[in-house]
Amino acid sequence: MPTLVIANKCYSSWSLRPWLLLRQLGIAFDEVLIPLGQPDTAARIREHSPAGRVPILKDGDVTVWDSLAIMEYAAERWPEAQVWPAERRARALARSVSAEMHSGFQALRSGCPMNLGKRFGARDRGEAVSRDVARIDAMWQDMRVRFGQGGPFLFGAFSAADAMYAPVVTRFDTYSVEVSGVSKAYMEAILGLPAFGEWRAAALAEPWFYKEDEVDEEPLANFRPVR
Amino acid sequence: MPTLVIANKCYSSWSLRPWLLLRQLGIAFDEVLIPLGQPDTAARIREHSPAGRVPILKDGDVTVWDSLAIMEYAAERWPEAQVWPAERRARALARSVSAEMHSGFQALRSGCPMNLGKRFGARDRGEAVSRDVARIDAMWQDMRVRFGQGGPFLFGAFSAADAMYAPVVTRFDTYSVEVSGVSKAYMEAILGLPAFGEWRAAALAEPWFYKEDEVDEEPLANFRPVR
Ligand SMILES: N[C@@H](CCC(=O)N[C@@H](CS)C(=O)NCC(=O)O)C(=O)O
Ligand SMILES: N[C@@H](CCC(=O)N[C@@H](CS)C(=O)NCC(=O)O)C(=O)O
Repeated sequence: MPTLVIANKCYSSWSLRPWLLLRQLGIAFDEVLIPLGQPDTAARIREHSPAGRVPILKDGDVTVWDSLAIMEYAAERWPEAQVWPAERRARALARSVSAEMHSGFQALRSGCPMNLGKRFGARDRGEAVSRDVARIDAMWQDMRVRFGQGGPFLFGAFSAADAMYAPVVTRFDTYSVEVSGVSKAYMEAILGLPAFGEWRAAALAEPWFYKEDEVDEEPLANFRPVR
Repeated sequence: MPTLVIANKCYSSWSLRPWLLLRQLGIAFDEVLIPLGQPDTAARIREHSPAGRVPILKDGDVTVWDSLAIMEYAAERWPEAQVWPAERRARALARSVSAEMHSGFQALRSGCPMNLGKRFGARDRGEAVSRDVARIDAMWQDMRVRFGQGGPFLFGAFSAADAMYAPVVTRFDTYSVEVSGVSKAYMEAILGLPAFGEWRAAALAEPWFYKEDEVDEEPLANFRPVR
């Protein structure tokens, strides 16, 4: 059985991506969770990968790191799981939007860090964040309209592209970001996945709080005991 | 024939990656070059892709954007070109280091912007840049030692992983960054590629200078007319 090494479920957006993909597609794996920000965090991660970052997938003699590389590996290793859309044009677009996420949206990522433990009210978070939101909202609508027949996800059935955007969905939810009706329905589909519910429940049971991932705003709601 | 939309060859590191891959593997394409920083740049890019960034590959009815997505598309579309290493463990690692590059090394990327028009002397560029350099140097050595039989590249024969790191090679060259002997030899192999020579010659003939990509240091050498 492969092993997926991840970080805390409340905050680690990169870990959520491959975890959700494998779980949702029914690929069994063992999980190793290494909490960030502890004295031995770096050493523990480096026991698994020279790149010093999670997520990491270990499968027999193969070690793959980085969320996107893990998805490509999974696509080859478990072809019956349909990691990417089957139709070649949809697949090319799914990879485009996934790679766009992987190296982009810096403003959103730093202005609205993933934080499953709280909800905040809508507010202006700056022009760069708004530009990221507008691009993502337009893209989700575009994919849903062009490829979304046959299911509630970006390309109809759940795929790696949805796993890549799942942390963005949680950010829009956590920070009460306004989006189109099409995008709202898409977010409901992601947030309603049983695999996502499982991840969230585990996140809310975690004891670790990270100052650097907590924005300096009064939350509307606290889903974990307040520290 | 597919069309690759790119930006200026002197500065656009993202454009170099798929261009070098396709050219070096002998995949024919038409090139459209859109200079950055002009009044019509954004509009011209958006004519080709809604993401508003280059590189973009157009192949019949398919439009793929983002350097890494283009490489995966090329791997499927031209299987005989061997975009990724043939052996599955090597391929998983090639994808890991490529994805690590795609979303990482921010300090190196902003501290040492790609600039084929000049060479600068060695100097301390800060701890974060040094950490990126150390990781890349160690990774190149590791790949060369474990998988580099059969050729001078990271996985022996030239692959997408080399294309992903080609801009890093030029940065280490441009900013006189010190690396191990193994990494130096690897850099020579990349800088000596005929396809890279072609890219560089075109870069040096370009008229555009960008303040934001020029570090504030006296160069050791100017390869273009000084502005
Ligand atoms: N691009 C990488 C990013 C991975 C990443 O940055 N992971 C963070 C946690 S979310 C990490 O491992 N940090 C190490 C540390 O903080 O010690 C991926 O997609 O996997
Ligand atoms: N992650 C993307 C990054 C692409 C990117 O940032 N491209 C820059 C040029 S190097 C761009 O198109 N900028 C648009 C502009 O400055 O108007 C990729 O790998 O393709």
